[in-house]
Amino acid sequence: MENENTEKIIIPDDQLVFVPLGGATAIGMNFFAYGYHGKWLVVDCGIGFPGENLPGVDCLLPDPQFLAERKADIVGVVITHGHEDHIGAIGYLWHDLQCPIYCTAFANELVESKLDEMGLLGRADTHVVASGDVIDLTPFEVEFVQMNHSLPEPNALAIRTKEGLVVHTGDWRLDKDPILGQEPDFKTLQALGEEGVLALVCDSTNASGGNQKGTEADVRETLIKLVGQYPGVQIAVGCFASNVARMESIYEAAKQNGREVCLLGRSLWRIDAAGRATGYFKDIPEFLSEEEALERPRGSVLYICTGSQGEPYSALNNLAATTPNKNSVYFGADDVVIFSSRVIPGNEKAISLLQKRLSSKGIKIVTDKDALVHVSGHYAGEDLEKLYALLKPKISLPVHGETLELVYHSNVAKKCGVPYVFCLEDGEAIALSGESPEILGEVPAGILAVDGKQIIPLNAEVIKKRRKMMDEGSAVLTLVINKEGKVLGEPQLSTFGLLASDSADQSELLSRITNAMEEIDPTRLNDDNLIKDQMRHTIRQFLSEKYGKKPLMDIHLIRV
Amino acid sequence: MENENTEKIIIPDDQLVFVPLGGATAIGMNFFAYGYHGKWLVVDCGIGFPGENLPGVDCLLPDPQFLAERKADIVGVVITHGHEDHIGAIGYLWHDLQCPIYCTAFANELVESKLDEMGLLGRADTHVVASGDVIDLTPFEVEFVQMNHSLPEPNALAIRTKEGLVVHTGDWRLDKDPILGQEPDFKTLQALGEEGVLALVCDSTNASGGNQKGTEADVRETLIKLVGQYPGVQIAVGCFASNVARMESIYEAAKQNGREVCLLGRSLWRIDAAGRATGYFKDIPEFLSEEEALERPRGSVLYICTGSQGEPYSALNNLAATTPNKNSVYFGADDVVIFSSRVIPGNEKAISLLQKRLSSKGIKIVTDKDALVHVSGHYAGEDLEKLYALLKPKISLPVHGETLELVYHSNVAKKCGVPYVFCLEDGEAIALSGESPEILGEVPAGILAVDGKQIIPLNAEVIKKRRKMMDEGSAVLTLVINKEGKVLGEPQLSTFGLLASDSADQSELLSRITNAMEEIDPTRLNDDNLIKDQMRHTIRQFLSEKYGKKPLMDIHLIRV
Repeated sequence: MENENTEKIIIPDDQLVFVPLGGATAIGMNFFAYGYHGKWLVVDCGIGFPGENLPGVDCLLPDPQFLAERKADIVGVVITHGHEDHIGAIGYLWHDLQCPIYCTAFANELVESKLDEMGLLGRADTHVVASGDVIDLTPFEVEFVQMNHSLPEPNALAIRTKEGLVVHTGDWRLDKDPILGQEPDFKTLQALGEEGVLALVCDSTNASGGNQKGTEADVRETLIKLVGQYPGVQIAVGCFASNVARMESIYEAAKQNGREVCLLGRSLWRIDAAGRATGYFKDIPEFLSEEEALERPRGSVLYICTGSQGEPYSALNNLAATTPNKNSVYFGADDVVIFSSRVIPGNEKAISLLQKRLSSKGIKIVTDKDALVHVSGHYAGEDLEKLYALLKPKISLPVHGETLELVYHSNVAKKCGVPYVFCLEDGEAIALSGESPEILGEVPAGILAVDGKQIIPLNAEVIKKRRKMMDEGSAVLTLVINKEGKVLGEPQLSTFGLLASDSADQSELLSRITNAMEEIDPTRLNDDNLIKDQMRHTIRQFLSEKYGKKPLMDIHLIRV
Repeated sequence: MENENTEKIIIPDDQLVFVPLGGATAIGMNFFAYGYHGKWLVVDCGIGFPGENLPGVDCLLPDPQFLAERKADIVGVVITHGHEDHIGAIGYLWHDLQCPIYCTAFANELVESKLDEMGLLGRADTHVVASGDVIDLTPFEVEFVQMNHSLPEPNALAIRTKEGLVVHTGDWRLDKDPILGQEPDFKTLQALGEEGVLALVCDSTNASGGNQKGTEADVRETLIKLVGQYPGVQIAVGCFASNVARMESIYEAAKQNGREVCLLGRSLWRIDAAGRATGYFKDIPEFLSEEEALERPRGSVLYICTGSQGEPYSALNNLAATTPNKNSVYFGADDVVIFSSRVIPGNEKAISLLQKRLSSKGIKIVTDKDALVHVSGHYAGEDLEKLYALLKPKISLPVHGETLELVYHSNVAKKCGVPYVFCLEDGEAIALSGESPEILGEVPAGILAVDGKQIIPLNAEVIKKRRKMMDEGSAVLTLVINKEGKVLGEPQLSTFGLLASDSADQSELLSRITNAMEEIDPTRLNDDNLIKDQMRHTIRQFLSEKYGKKPLMDIHLIRV
């Protein structure tokens, strides 16, 4: 919907075509389409997170228009892994796609709970696959190739067609010492390289990030030592709920120091349920609930908490807010909070505020500046070259990263000798399988906003207006007049976010309005538009002179 | 105004008292007061920058109430250096302070231009001092001690009273190889340490930042090489306007590569004027204006640009937006933009968007990830220990930093053997000169917002309402009824940021309103409040059910 001027482009039937529909040039909203022989394969279906400049918006969705118009020809949605930015939109966009969903067991637990929330469970056709499986989605064949990431069962997809093989990585790292028993499937990657890779569609999140400083196993070691340094006090570790590897590391740190583990935060319990339902946390006893933890002696529990990004009502912010009481976990002087996560750009202020609140209670804070308590789930630096060396693609399509990461990724691809490198925009279609790849043009693509109970385009008038009201406020004047233009009753004025309710300015503005009415040429009092313009002008002038504001405005002129 | 419940505290006359009134626990809004014998010395008077969660607010000011009530007893405002967060509030708060202002020549140029903007030039009593000067502000004596920072003439203040000596650093680093000829005055710092420092009030901006990777001279060398690598193309360097040392470094890089320098951006010209008026840029020919630069051959000019933080209408964003034309500087494929500045937390998204726009034109981007094109103006790591070793204060008062920086600074002070370390909140008064320092309690302190043409408390109702409207929108219904409660004319409904203007929902809601009026018990139609409540309920229910929104609302009920 954003590209209203999109020209009709022709998608050639005999070529393998790739169209990113979300997540091409940013983090979040992964949504990619592959076309061949009139059929479409969809990879991932994720949400994005709105910044503070998107008032009232709950989350962002990729616009599915292009695929919705081809609904009957979609062979399936294949999910690389269970993170929100890869599966979160599936409930919202299901009606537009209505096709089978393929994912591994762990991701499927999360996908089904999303479908359930939307009342779609049982209606959507979900299929559980495993790493190594090959599924037939004619004219595509999709092989799941095990990678490593911060949650269970991350997969790259080897997408085969008669026109060639595309490898689509999803999020990945090459952790040589993986915690979740998921060593990347180097053998298959090597074999794919030998088979011949037409194109590589590859994550860029952390491409310029230098060399990964350590592995998840290193983080585990650090946490074990760190927890041992603070006997007898309360310790909480903040981490991303979806970081199952980290949850296991934290459990190990607790166990080796004689502590039990309590989960604080709903999303952690959701991941726990999905994990246990699919065979994870096997050797870990049930986590303690808050109630159970409260019965244990202080200093004998390790808390895993949501809210490491400073989210307002999350577990860590609750810890910062509570005073000693019997019904909830209390942290105070000399207790310890470990931030086992990175700072997501844009969250600095919220995190600093949380840390200030914790710190003002005397709580000690440990971050990755102090110790190796976090490593990224995404490759950084040299592993990218390794992947290019293994796969030797003809075409490189860096996706999913901020500008500089995409540029960096492109440079690595060129350095590795890849003949064709393209950083596409969302909606930009490329034919991959000709002698040389060819940009076909743009298809409809854009961003939708989940705004309360509605889904609307990101550039919708209502969002623009709310953004303007943020700065300028709003005002409505009601004037009741008779046929001759005489004012009946008192004019009423409501301003929001401008005049203080008890202000003298409100009365002054009302009297200016009355004066302005009296100054209108009596012969023109039959002209509603003229009266409205005069009123608008009077209000605007007053508010601009005195307040420096130009509010959204409406005049209710009623003749009786 | 924020601390309405502040208890009356007693400020002892015979003690030296310190009260941070802005900038104690954050970056920005430096505003500090020292009290002794009933007199007050003010250090710095800066603004803060609002985040995106402060709709419509231009800048933040420290609340001057505490000092305004003691106006007659203020001996002066002493300015450490000319950055906005140290001088920017002086025009706004002048009426509350009305005392002499003391600063060095460069800062004075900037202060006077601020006073001029407010029509206060000539009314405010400004005094130019130089590093090394000692001024008598009985009962205080203030010595200006040269430090090093990213702009000319940064000073620490040695504040002497009969009760002891306080050193107030302002922003500083200890660059051993300074560009602006301003080596920190180690001799005086050493002497102050020997004299005996009661308390050190010290910047914490970058306290945990590890060791400074290089000096401004290193940056200069890098820029010289870098500019040499791109002959014949357009090159722009984005940097903070106030970074005079960097401007000189960039000039040097241009000169050594046979380029002239053009300034793009008003704030750069303002700094240029202040610099030249006070003897800086002596060996640098007049910078080119945009018009002049356009007459030079492409590739012969180096542009210094504002907007390295992605500010919307700044020079770098203009470069990203322009298409080839005769009237403004155009950058395109293979041209180069160097970001010679850090990313200020909160600006990541804006910067990434700017870089995306530049990159999509084929412009090459260089940042501090690629080369040493920026060093901080603030010390990082080991220099802090050096300062403590020189000054050996009895009391350490870390100020001006985010939480973790303050905590880190405190730990360094403790490690250096400082007996008393306090991280105060704004408004928290401490008596320094007793046998041991004593927190006295809280004085009124808080934050004011410059909101259009008004200055209002940050927690003012109008700002709260605008923040609510960001998420929920606003709605006003007008109903005209006669004495019997019969509706006259058509009800009118304005919603802002909710219903699309052409929506069927608007008509549906209006018909629900009409129905709701008809359902009111006829005997109660004389009750305005009851009618208003019914209308409010009807609108709220509809918008909540269908839109998930709870707007700000007003009902104009007019009886005629």
